[in-house]
Formats: sequence, structure tokens, C-alpha cells
Amino acid sequence: MRAVQLSRYDTSPVLTEVPEPTITGPLDVVVRIGGAGVCRTDLHVIEGQWQQKSGVTLPYTLGHENAGWVHAVGPAVTNVSVGDPVILHPLATCGLCPACRLGDDVHCENSRFPGIDSDGGYADLLKTNARAVVKLDHSLQPADVAALADAGLTAYHAARKAAAALRPGHKAVIIGAGGLGHIGIQVLRALTPAELIVVDRSWEALGLAEQLGAQHIVASDGSEVDAVRDLTDGHGAEAVLDFVGEGGAVEAGLGMLRRAGNYYVIGYGGELRVPMIDVISTEVNFVGNLVGSYTDLAELMVLAAAGAVTLHTRRYPLSSYSDALDDLDKGEVRGRAILVP
Amino acid sequence: MRAVQLSRYDTSPVLTEVPEPTITGPLDVVVRIGGAGVCRTDLHVIEGQWQQKSGVTLPYTLGHENAGWVHAVGPAVTNVSVGDPVILHPLATCGLCPACRLGDDVHCENSRFPGIDSDGGYADLLKTNARAVVKLDHSLQPADVAALADAGLTAYHAARKAAAALRPGHKAVIIGAGGLGHIGIQVLRALTPAELIVVDRSWEALGLAEQLGAQHIVASDGSEVDAVRDLTDGHGAEAVLDFVGEGGAVEAGLGMLRRAGNYYVIGYGGELRVPMIDVISTEVNFVGNLVGSYTDLAELMVLAAAGAVTLHTRRYPLSSYSDALDDLDKGEVRGRAILVP
Amino acid sequence: MRAVQLSRYDTSPVLTEVPEPTITGPLDVVVRIGGAGVCRTDLHVIEGQWQQKSGVTLPYTLGHENAGWVHAVGPAVTNVSVGDPVILHPLATCGLCPACRLGDDVHCENSRFPGIDSDGGYADLLKTNARAVVKLDHSLQPADVAALADAGLTAYHAARKAAAALRPGHKAVIIGAGGLGHIGIQVLRALTPAELIVVDRSWEALGLAEQLGAQHIVASDGSEVDAVRDLTDGHGAEAVLDFVGEGGAVEAGLGMLRRAGNYYVIGYGGELRVPMIDVISTEVNFVGNLVGSYTDLAELMVLAAAGAVTLHTRRYPLSSYSDALDDLDKGEVRGRAILVP
Amino acid sequence: MRAVQLSRYDTSPVLTEVPEPTITGPLDVVVRIGGAGVCRTDLHVIEGQWQQKSGVTLPYTLGHENAGWVHAVGPAVTNVSVGDPVILHPLATCGLCPACRLGDDVHCENSRFPGIDSDGGYADLLKTNARAVVKLDHSLQPADVAALADAGLTAYHAARKAAAALRPGHKAVIIGAGGLGHIGIQVLRALTPAELIVVDRSWEALGLAEQLGAQHIVASDGSEVDAVRDLTDGHGAEAVLDFVGEGGAVEAGLGMLRRAGNYYVIGYGGELRVPMIDVISTEVNFVGNLVGSYTDLAELMVLAAAGAVTLHTRRYPLSSYSDALDDLDKGEVRGRAILVP
Repeated sequence: MRAVQLSRYDTSPVLTEVPEPTITGPLDVVVRIGGAGVCRTDLHVIEGQWQQKSGVTLPYTLGHENAGWVHAVGPAVTNVSVGDPVILHPLATCGLCPACRLGDDVHCENSRFPGIDSDGGYADLLKTNARAVVKLDHSLQPADVAALADAGLTAYHAARKAAAALRPGHKAVIIGAGGLGHIGIQVLRALTPAELIVVDRSWEALGLAEQLGAQHIVASDGSEVDAVRDLTDGHGAEAVLDFVGEGGAVEAGLGMLRRAGNYYVIGYGGELRVPMIDVISTEVNFVGNLVGSYTDLAELMVLAAAGAVTLHTRRYPLSSYSDALDDLDKGEVRGRAILVP
Repeated sequence: MRAVQLSRYDTSPVLTEVPEPTITGPLDVVVRIGGAGVCRTDLHVIEGQWQQKSGVTLPYTLGHENAGWVHAVGPAVTNVSVGDPVILHPLATCGLCPACRLGDDVHCENSRFPGIDSDGGYADLLKTNARAVVKLDHSLQPADVAALADAGLTAYHAARKAAAALRPGHKAVIIGAGGLGHIGIQVLRALTPAELIVVDRSWEALGLAEQLGAQHIVASDGSEVDAVRDLTDGHGAEAVLDFVGEGGAVEAGLGMLRRAGNYYVIGYGGELRVPMIDVISTEVNFVGNLVGSYTDLAELMVLAAAGAVTLHTRRYPLSSYSDALDDLDKGEVRGRAILVP
Repeated sequence: MRAVQLSRYDTSPVLTEVPEPTITGPLDVVVRIGGAGVCRTDLHVIEGQWQQKSGVTLPYTLGHENAGWVHAVGPAVTNVSVGDPVILHPLATCGLCPACRLGDDVHCENSRFPGIDSDGGYADLLKTNARAVVKLDHSLQPADVAALADAGLTAYHAARKAAAALRPGHKAVIIGAGGLGHIGIQVLRALTPAELIVVDRSWEALGLAEQLGAQHIVASDGSEVDAVRDLTDGHGAEAVLDFVGEGGAVEAGLGMLRRAGNYYVIGYGGELRVPMIDVISTEVNFVGNLVGSYTDLAELMVLAAAGAVTLHTRRYPLSSYSDALDDLDKGEVRGRAILVP
Repeated sequence: MRAVQLSRYDTSPVLTEVPEPTITGPLDVVVRIGGAGVCRTDLHVIEGQWQQKSGVTLPYTLGHENAGWVHAVGPAVTNVSVGDPVILHPLATCGLCPACRLGDDVHCENSRFPGIDSDGGYADLLKTNARAVVKLDHSLQPADVAALADAGLTAYHAARKAAAALRPGHKAVIIGAGGLGHIGIQVLRALTPAELIVVDRSWEALGLAEQLGAQHIVASDGSEVDAVRDLTDGHGAEAVLDFVGEGGAVEAGLGMLRRAGNYYVIGYGGELRVPMIDVISTEVNFVGNLVGSYTDLAELMVLAAAGAVTLHTRRYPLSSYSDALDDLDKGEVRGRAILVP
């Protein structure tokens, strides 16, 4: 089958022929790829930034945001059948460790991460396990939702945590209405009646935020902290969801947070730096967010099937993977780039 | 190997030779039994009360409270090794259905229940799966903890739910300090500083309750509702854990409950019958309780290893299973009867 | 001032002149009534059903669903000023007892209930205290929201509890789309993306439910349990909100509930009657619901101001109170009857 | 009456005669002081560190950890009577703002803080309000518990939050077993069966921690992170309660935290500084902690009355306030210094 593989760091990946993956374990699932998201992380992988963390042996196949149709299953698989349309949770987890037993599969002690530490979805077929596959509603196309598998799932996870603490009359600030942020806005709209204040540097992003239902938009031009304070009667917002996490966003975000408020850390790159006395005198919390759980992904697919969460995508044939990576690198993709067979 | 099997309802089970269970599935675990609890449910099974519910085909081996040592494992088992001492969660669950994915394995859609719907632990060996085995601390003997696998786990599950809503200064009533109840008292002592009021008909049971740390004991002689009202300044208790569930316990329990209190249903046999207007005007809740989850069992074993939960047991050789069942039927077992190899 | 007073049980109340209430306590608030809801409870009060419970001394003024404008305040009142439009929480609470200190003011140990145990709002003025008044957004008219003060608040309280446990993909059954139920539907729509299944005997009520956003409507004609089972893949719904509570609704509601589901008791009249073994084998919960807290009312007003919760009302001049009571008794009021000055 | 007043920053306070406080508001409570804690914050106040924050007008009376007996009450006070022994919540709150209505009185928008922004308890009498007084069990002496009013309450508040997320088998690290920390250890012992690991520089403090029931003690000598990792199978602890908050404690504490763990910020002085990528890749949370609520204080008094929380105190007559401040400054007070009449 075809696969886009990375053979050496800092060189372009190449489209090549590789053997098809086969069922070797009882819970194995092989999926025929319908869509594979092209993500900024892929650029970082190519540059070698993940070399230490992933420990992957080159060459290997890129692609960690995947959806498609079940192609083959191991003998112990009971939750999907050949032909089922599925989206893939990024992690293939063990189901036996304490974290898995509590439904907290992201902290599984024995997971595999296709596209990062083993062969991914820039290919015709990909092997994962039964615990990673979420069956899709017939109304959803794999290529349309593939990019929700990782970026969207992270946004969902953080937005769901935030929504659980938000009540009518509360206000939530979303910093960054880009790839993850605009999913976060849609999820918050679906889960909470709290008022949304979206902060971004780009007027295009702010316009999209407004279309998605944000009650307030604020340009990130240096006056954003004051603007949010004004919108919250001087108190600040009960929740700040920071999808940027660098370049002044953190400092601004802290300035927008209300006493006893929650700051959700999603974007990264910068540093969280705050005097301990400020943490205790305002009694705020900083909440870390990794990708969501399997159940989170199943719930996100419910919202997608109901039309409550949609994603702009631009499709590229698998053979044009290079264009997709280039366009992403140059910032020329609106929404998400998706490789299709 | 030896196994005590039921061949016809309403006849005595017989000790017989049967083939040893073997590994056939990837997650199978065969356990050499170190102790099998003899439970009132076994008497009900023999009488045929479970015939419809379980749908089991006779003959089959009794015994649903089991602990022992791992004897053999399937190729996908990673959480235990041959020789490990283990206690068995009553259910062998699938790990793939929505309930399992949330850690709520008791509501698994595809579980098996050894000793009820398939061969149990009145035998030398028993087959379950990797998702059912909790490794024991070296300080614990399988025969000492086997009876915690079902009865104890139910008590733990209810007590843990209750403890989560109890705060210092609250009071909790435990109705029935028998088999489950006296585990419940120990678990509550470990998990909450709330004051415990134990209600029972037997002075012996009340004496044991006091030894286990109950702050108040109340004889169930018709004056128990007034007594509990007196102990709670006329308000009633924030929680009532009803381990009896019949014969006037429910009516009495309702009379002991405070406004906005929680009534935990654990024992059964009787009927919950209350005017809707009383439910709303006092805003009380009735909370159902089945057996606990795998994580609950792992936690209960932590308490057992710390000496915070102990169980009176009386051991019988497997070949004396008939004496054990008879003694239980005649009410002559103090604590729990355990079959040992 | 004018007031509609009850002088003897089972006789018609009369419009009469009474002295205006005056500020006597530091936290007193006197409100000029802008709207007073006419409620079925008022009919019950007139019939004497509340005589024992309320212990009120006749004659007294009816009316427990009130909104208006602040007319006078005691010296310690800091949260409202004369002229502010307000809605009144039904209870004037103490702020000092343990329940009040936790925000659970409905269980206040020292509350007063104007319209039930002291003079109510079928009048020009009413006296309550500072802890009962919620300031209204300028977009809301007292007469439009008055009926949300008690009936609406009860529906909000139950719906909010239910929403906290509902996740995308879950289903909630609403039994009864009448006065309270149709508020419940709107609140659930605002707070959760769970699918709503509304069950009612009246096709008119079902039509309204559909307009309000219910995904499924089911006629209560004897086939409703099967219909709900079909809509839930045979499992039943994660939540049942019972706004009827009598005449077969409870039995039907139990049949619609999923394992581990929550049954919210709101309507009353009938009896909750269920074998204890069914409570434990399915591990369901029954959740009592009284009227909501002050914070609940403040949140409901946020939803009302946002247009997310609206109420059909029919206005009657205060002097036509008798027509309003008659129309209600004959079932001829669509939505809620409101007395206006 | 006598009062120890601060007349100028950076000079010694003086014992002087001042007029007795009188009841002027309906909810006023005047308390005859039985014990006033001498706290490091008092030294900071004298040095002028609180000048900006408190905005207090000099001269004023120090002392923010107070207990005694009710001396006089305003006309609207219903929860205490003259002669009642009481401990004082540090804040006199309004009971009307949104935070107060939710039981979150620490974030009251209109509170007064005797001893910080108005006259405190280094005196014969102090004026607070009805919402600040918690009645003491007859077994408790005001002078013995006074220091729990602020320091102890902060420790309780954080420990209670931590306990709510801790389960059997979890481990909690307490950094700093000094004034607050040794209260925290006792509260955790009472509220959770999680294993406690106490880290401190002082062997005396570690010895006390062991007596109070800590399962593990670790010297803070540079090897503490490794030691905690060893005690937690290399994973780190589910909770870190940092009562130090400076001088390397934060860096060490971060190194002891498990994936998905909670870091409770209580001590301050230093800086929380952590790359955003570390917050998200481990999905940890940082939880701010201010002083506890009124309900927290009532609960802490329940634990104190049960003997579950005790405090070393050293009494000084009010006239020896200067010795108490000096001894504290020189680090010569074991436990807490208390001024008594």
C-alpha cells in the first residue's frame, strides 16, 4: 500500500510502497483511511522536535488525526465490524492500567500513539486497536471529521471541563479563535449558556467567532485586558481558556481572570509565571489540558452529527501531501488540510 | 480438578471431578482458588431463585466470591503474572462498551458473572479475565479477603458514595450491622469523620459496631426512630445506609432521614413506598447501590492491607462445602464461611 | 392599599383595603407589585389544604409568585435600591443558619413564605427581605416574569440538577409539558445538548414542546413506555423528569429509565412505589426537588433576559382576581394568569 | 477597655485605653476576647507591608485570630446569645452578594476584616457581625482554638479540597510541617485514608508529623524529590500541598507531582514558574487557596471538639503582647502564641 514516510529528520517525507498492516493481536483493528489531518505537529515531527519524546524508529509513516472504515479486526473485537465508518482516538490504550479503569485513558501507562511513535494515517491503511475506534453516525464522512480526532478533541476536553463550572450569567474568555479555539467556541456554545468573549489578533478569526455565536469579540491589540474588564463589570471572567499560550497571551489572560476563576491552559510555547501570593490572594486555579478521552471523542462526534460542531477543511489527494505540508507551513490553509486516498 | 456443582435445582450440590479450565481467549486468566466465600445468594441459587435471571445451564460450579493465585494467563494479559495473589471482581467485563469506558464496569453490556452464570470458585481453578483480577498486597491472604469480593465490595461502593457527601458534623445511620453492614461501618470510619449511628436488632451486632468505632448504637426495638431523632437534635441524619431493606427497616429509615438527606438502598426484600409529596417537600434522594467497580475493589484492598477493614471468617475445606452451606442456612456462621482447597 | 384576602377557608377571598406594610426590620424590603402569579396552589390554600402546614392566621393576603419594584428598604439593605425592578424568591430566609451558609436557602431553618404563611402579593405592596430580591435586567417586565418566581424556579432547579449529569448523546424524558414542564424543556435546551423526549397526553402541549426544541414527542396513550424504549435503543433514558407525579406517570416513568439513571421527582399527588430489589439491581436514583435557591432564581433571570426562557401569560387587573381564579379552576388559562395593579 | 494599637508603621504597638465597641447595626456582635492569636502577619502589618492593601487608618487595634464569649448582640442576631463561647471567622461578610449567596463568603464583595482593616482582638472586646461567629462546643476553650480562626482555617480549607480528590491508595505530599502544615496533616488524617508524605527541613517538625500520623517523613535536604519519587513507584504523588511556597519548595514540589495531579498553593513568597508545555503534557492543576469559609470553620471546630485537630499554644497575658511579638520574631514560639485577657 501507499504511505508517506519520514526517513530522516529535516528532510521531506516521501510517498512509498510499504506492506499492509495485518492483524496480529486479538484487539487489533486495521482501518482504511478516509481522511488524515495535516497538523502543525507534523511539521515539528519532520524537524525532529519529537525525536526524543517519541523514540520512534525511522522510517515511519506520519499522520495522527485519522478517520476511515474498518478494514479488518482481531478475534476479540466486539465493538466494531468490517465496513463501519470510524474516527480514531489518537491513543491505542491498554484497558488494564488504573487510569484506563477509571476512564482516564489519556493517562494510560501502556499506550501507543500512531503517527507519533508508530505508523500513522498518511497511508491507505493504519493499525490501531479496538479501544481507539469510535463508530461514526451515518451522517458523518470520515474526511470531514478526521481533524477532530486530535485538535478538536483537545478543544472539546478543555471546553467540557470549563462548561462544568460555568453557570448562567458567567462569562468565559476564549483566547485564540484559530484551529482549536474555533472548535472550543462551538463546544462551549453547545454545553453552556455562559457568555463568550473571544480575543484574537485577527479580525477574520473574530468575525468567524461571531458567526459561531460568541456574544463579544475583542481585538488583541494591547487593550484587550481593559476591554474584558469592561465587559465583566471590572471583575474579570469566571473562566479563561487560553488556546495560544505564548507571546503575551498568558499575561493578558491572567489580567482577565476573576477572583476564584479558572484558567485553562491549552496552548503552549510560553511560560506560566505568577507570584504565589497572587495565586492565593485571588484563589484562582490553573487547569492543565491534554487531549480528551475516548468518551470525550464519542461525545464530540455526537455534537458533530447534530451539526453543533463543524470544521472548515481543504482536501488534498494523498499524493499531494507535500503541497498540504507546504501550504500549512506558509499559513495558506483556511481551516484544516486533510489528506484523502 | 474438584468442583462443587449444582446439577438440579432444589437438590444438594455435589463434589465431583471436572476438566480444568484452559486459556482460550487472549485476556483469559485462570486462578487457583485460595478461598471462596459461601454466601446466602448461593442458597438462593440452589433453590432456583436465580434460574431465570442467570439463564445458566446445569450442571455448573457455584461460588462468586473468590481469591487465589494466578495459574495461567492469555497472551494479551499484561497486568498480572502467574503466581500473583489476586482477588476477583465478580464480573468479567468487556472493556469496550460505553459503561466500561467510563470506569463504570458494573453496568458493562457484555459481562460474565462466574458462580452465577458460568463456573465459579467452589473448585480448584476458575477462569475469569484480566479485567477482573486485582493484585493483592503481600500482607493479605486470599482466604482472608475472598468474602470482600462481592459482599464487601457492595458495602464499600455504597459507603464511598455516602462518604463523598458527608462532612464533619454530619451524622450517618447504618441500619443493619451484619455481614455487609459491619464492612460498611469500617469503610465509613476510614473515609469520613461523620458520626455513625448503628441500628440493629441484635445486641451482639451492636457491640461489634461499637468496637469498630460507631459513636452511637441504637436497638431496633420500635423506638429507634425516636432515638435517632434525639441523637440528631430532632433533624434526622444526613445519610441513611439501609443494609436490611425489609421488615420495617425502610419505614424506620425514612423516619430517620433529614431534609435534603440521602437514603442509600443496599439491602432488599421489601418495598420502597413513599408519597411523592414527601419526596419533594423534604427534597430527599434515594440512591440505588449495586456491587462496586474494579477501582472500588482495588481501593477496598488498600484499606484491607492497611488493616482498616477486617472480616471474621470461618474456614471449611472444600470437601466440607455441605457443612458450610448448612451452617449458613442455620445461622450458625459468625462472620463469613470460606471454602479453602 | 388594596389586598385580596382570605378570611375563611372554603369561601371566596375578597378585595379589601388594608394598611400598607412598613419597614420594621433592618433587612426589610417593601415591593410595589408589578405582577402576581395565580397558581393552582392558591386554589388549594382557599380550600384549606395548607391550613395545617402553613399555620397562617386569617385573614391574610394570597399570592406567592411576585415581582415588582422596590418601594422601601430597611437600613441594612445594600443589594437593591428604591425603584429597582425585582423578582421575589418565594422565601425570605435568615442568612445565618447552616443551610443558608451553604447557599442552600430553601432549607433555611427560619424562613417566611409570603402568600403562604404571611401576607402575599395579591396586593399593591408586599413586605419581604433583602435576601429574597433578585434585581431584574432592564429588558424584563415584572408582570412577564412573576410566574417564574415559584413554578418556574422549581422547574429550573430540577432541570439544572439533571443537566449537570447529562452528556452529549444522553437522552432525557420530560413527563408533562404543562406549566412547569414547558419551563423545564426550555431550561434543559439552554443547559445541555442531551436529546429531549417529551411525553404528554395533550397534543397541544406536545406541539408546544416541539416548538421549544424537543427532539422527540411521545403521546401518553399507554404506548409511551415502548415508544421511549424504542427511541433509546431499548435501554431507557439517562434521566426522567417527572412533572406529573400521579395517575400512572410514575409507573410509566420507571419503565423509561435506564440502568444507573436518575428519576427526578417534581410533580406529586401519587406515590413512589418500587421493590427495593429493582432499585438495587438497576442502581437507579430518585431525586427529590423542591423550589430552587436564590442563586437558581438569579440564573433563571439570566436565561429569561437572554430570551432563552419565556412564558405565556394572561393578565388580569387585580380587581378581577376572581375571574383569574375561576378561569384557572376551569382550566381555561393558557400559560399563567397574572394579576397586575 | 484595653487595646494594643498600632499608631505608626515600623514602631512598636502600645497598650492603651480605648472606648468599648457598641452595637450600632442590627447584626452586630461584640465579643469579649478569650484568646487572640499572634501571627506572623501581625509582624508584617507592623512593618507596613499591608498598608496599601488594607487601607486602614492608624491608630487601630491588631489581632485577626480571635475567640471568646458573646458580650452583646444587635436586634437581628438569632444565631448566638450573650454568654455563648464563639470563634470568629476572620471576615465579617454581607450575606447579600452573589459569593455569599453561594456559601463562598471568602469572596464576599463587602466584607470587613477585623485586625487587618478595622479594630481587632488584641483587646478586651471586639466588634464583628452575626455571620462571623461560630458557636463552640462546651469542650473547647476560646484560648485553645483562637489560632485556628485564620491559620488553621486556611490549612483546613486546602486540606478539605485535597481530600475530596484523594482515594484509598493515593499519596499526598505535605511540604512544610510548621504552623499551618501540622494542622493540614491532622485534617488530612481525619478526612482521607490517603498516605501522607511530609517534607520538611526540620527533624523536629518531621518528628511531630510522624506523631500526628504521617506514614512517611522526608528530610528536605536536596534529595527530597528523589525520595518522594521512590515512595510513589516513580510516579509522583496525586496531591502536593505546598505550605511553604518559596525557597526552592515550588520547584521541588513540581518534581514530586504525578501526571494529572493537583498542586495546592498555600504558602507564598516565591513564584510559580513553569513552562506551559509542562502543564499540558502532564495535565496537572495548580489550585489557589485562601482562608476557608464560615462552613469550613464550623467543620474545623467539629474536628477540634472531637480531638482530631489540636494545636500547641503558649499563652501570654495581653499586657505581655510585646514579649509574644518578640518571641515570634525570634522564632522562639513552639506552636502558636496566644494573648489572653
